[in-house]
Amino acid sequence: MALFQSRTFNVSENPTPIKTDAVIIGAGPVGLFQVFELGLLDLKAELIDSLPQPGGQCAELYPEKPIYDIPAYPVVAAQELIDNLMAQIKPFNAGMHLGQQVERFEKREDGRFTVVTSKGTSFDAGAVIIAAGLGSFLPRRLRARNLEQLTTDQVQYKVTDRERYRGKKLLILGGGDSALDWTMDLAEVADSIALIHRRAEYRGAPASVAKVKALVEAGRVQEHQGLIMEVHSEDGRFTGLEIMDLDKQRTVVEGDEVLVFWGLAPDLGPIADWGLDIEKKQLSVDTEQFQTSLPGVFAVGDINTYPGKKKLILSGFHEAALAAFGVQKYLYPDKRQFVQYTTTSPIMHKRLGVSDKD
Amino acid sequence: MALFQSRTFNVSENPTPIKTDAVIIGAGPVGLFQVFELGLLDLKAELIDSLPQPGGQCAELYPEKPIYDIPAYPVVAAQELIDNLMAQIKPFNAGMHLGQQVERFEKREDGRFTVVTSKGTSFDAGAVIIAAGLGSFLPRRLRARNLEQLTTDQVQYKVTDRERYRGKKLLILGGGDSALDWTMDLAEVADSIALIHRRAEYRGAPASVAKVKALVEAGRVQEHQGLIMEVHSEDGRFTGLEIMDLDKQRTVVEGDEVLVFWGLAPDLGPIADWGLDIEKKQLSVDTEQFQTSLPGVFAVGDINTYPGKKKLILSGFHEAALAAFGVQKYLYPDKRQFVQYTTTSPIMHKRLGVSDKD
Repeated sequence: MALFQSRTFNVSENPTPIKTDAVIIGAGPVGLFQVFELGLLDLKAELIDSLPQPGGQCAELYPEKPIYDIPAYPVVAAQELIDNLMAQIKPFNAGMHLGQQVERFEKREDGRFTVVTSKGTSFDAGAVIIAAGLGSFLPRRLRARNLEQLTTDQVQYKVTDRERYRGKKLLILGGGDSALDWTMDLAEVADSIALIHRRAEYRGAPASVAKVKALVEAGRVQEHQGLIMEVHSEDGRFTGLEIMDLDKQRTVVEGDEVLVFWGLAPDLGPIADWGLDIEKKQLSVDTEQFQTSLPGVFAVGDINTYPGKKKLILSGFHEAALAAFGVQKYLYPDKRQFVQYTTTSPIMHKRLGVSDKD
Repeated sequence: MALFQSRTFNVSENPTPIKTDAVIIGAGPVGLFQVFELGLLDLKAELIDSLPQPGGQCAELYPEKPIYDIPAYPVVAAQELIDNLMAQIKPFNAGMHLGQQVERFEKREDGRFTVVTSKGTSFDAGAVIIAAGLGSFLPRRLRARNLEQLTTDQVQYKVTDRERYRGKKLLILGGGDSALDWTMDLAEVADSIALIHRRAEYRGAPASVAKVKALVEAGRVQEHQGLIMEVHSEDGRFTGLEIMDLDKQRTVVEGDEVLVFWGLAPDLGPIADWGLDIEKKQLSVDTEQFQTSLPGVFAVGDINTYPGKKKLILSGFHEAALAAFGVQKYLYPDKRQFVQYTTTSPIMHKRLGVSDKD
């Protein structure tokens, strides 16, 4: 008899949403500094990020990399930059909601926003600041004629169930490590594998390339070179791909299943569906408040665009400062705005928790 | 017999001007960081500042003061910020021309600039970047009717020769420490002193106020309250001031000399005469390149203005980054522009002197 019974909890939606001045989407360096700039204006913030830790790309992709162009840091490691920003925003106690994405976004009639994440955390926010960097990294999608005649699950971008491919004629697209690794792995279950890459050389590890070449020698894998031109199908069921090689010769490679491993590309994700003005996959903003086309929604850092925009962390910091004043103006349109300096203002010292007095 | 004879050197104009990509006027934090951003684009710079050391206000006015709003610095002393910026720009070997002001500024027909300082240092510059902060701090000037009827040396803003006031009827304007200190000091030489302030309370140190009050009791100083309305003079010689008190009563205070101690106010100085668009004593710039109304002349930091401008050091850093691209475009209009990241680009590493390879 088990001492503890296994129980299943339902992920419950927040009964009462978290009420805040601003929800910041993205906890990279710019999103973190946004907390600071809002805090100086006495505005509270809640951060949401899909990654399990704060710091965005700096913490996830290159924590050890030295950065040389942060002002007054001759050199700083990416993770050290994040650690220092975390220390700087500590006085403002922003809520951190990690490992979740925004699934619902709605501007209400009262001008405030309803935001709900994939974990069911819900917010009642005065303003929304998008600091989502390059967006989420999503698989680069297949593009070809007649693709729309397939149902969406006919083209797969990851292997969730190896058994799906047992005894099947499988087409694998790509020339990097993912394509090579899955070619080796699925060669054990599939009836046949056609590996289709745009050129004869692969980008994967030399050892993997050698193993795939051995499978080709053994007749278990066929190699094809060419661009994907057209999808062939019958009644919404995938039947093959027409490819074109460097000599413009076209061939049809037949198969039952197709797996695409073309790497990851940054993608705005659901943000693209919020009705904001978008230019080249970036959110258009003004340079006065860094507000998007929807009043109350701001965008700072790599995700925004404006004339002269350079994707620099230090530009994101400046944008966060001006966006904070923009949020203040959106929430309190009649309030007089002025800059209080952190060197001299007792109000700033109190907000920063560095005041001697009460 | 003296071992060394005293000799006088003539300040000689540079026979050949210093040729450079950009002259930066002002070596405060933003001017210093401008060197760095130009350096990343392989553009050389020369810095000019009227102060004897780099760092602007940070080093001159409040070196010990903690600053809390520099990104990724929870706190940094002003001088420490400057020291770190100096270390950061070291790889780019910018020329430093301190203790001198720009006296000649000219845009030539070839689009380049001639700049000559008060020490005779002259430059042949591809572009000019003004990072002069609040400008120079100059005495706040007397304004009153008929002031133009006096020759300029009739109104004094500092004491260069106490003997000038011996046996004279002296009017001293102001209510701060300078006005009080000089009232006490010159009471010893002047025939009489009238201390004129807009209200009865003085801003000076309590001990100084007490001493001046004692001189008033002793009949050595007369106090007047009121606004300065009109200058009285005879044949260009000062004879007195007409003042108006809170009850709108007008009085004429007679005297032979007038000293004004109304404190210092930032002033654009000669920059105001360069024909650039000015709005409320600041240089108007676009937010794409931070260029002024004169192509090839840029303005960054507290001296510029644009919609949304906040006088923050971090905004100046962003402006410097975009201005550097603006300078590059002005000098090399056909060059393709792109951001190379300091984390990954070997070219950037070489320019920064952190490359392993050659």
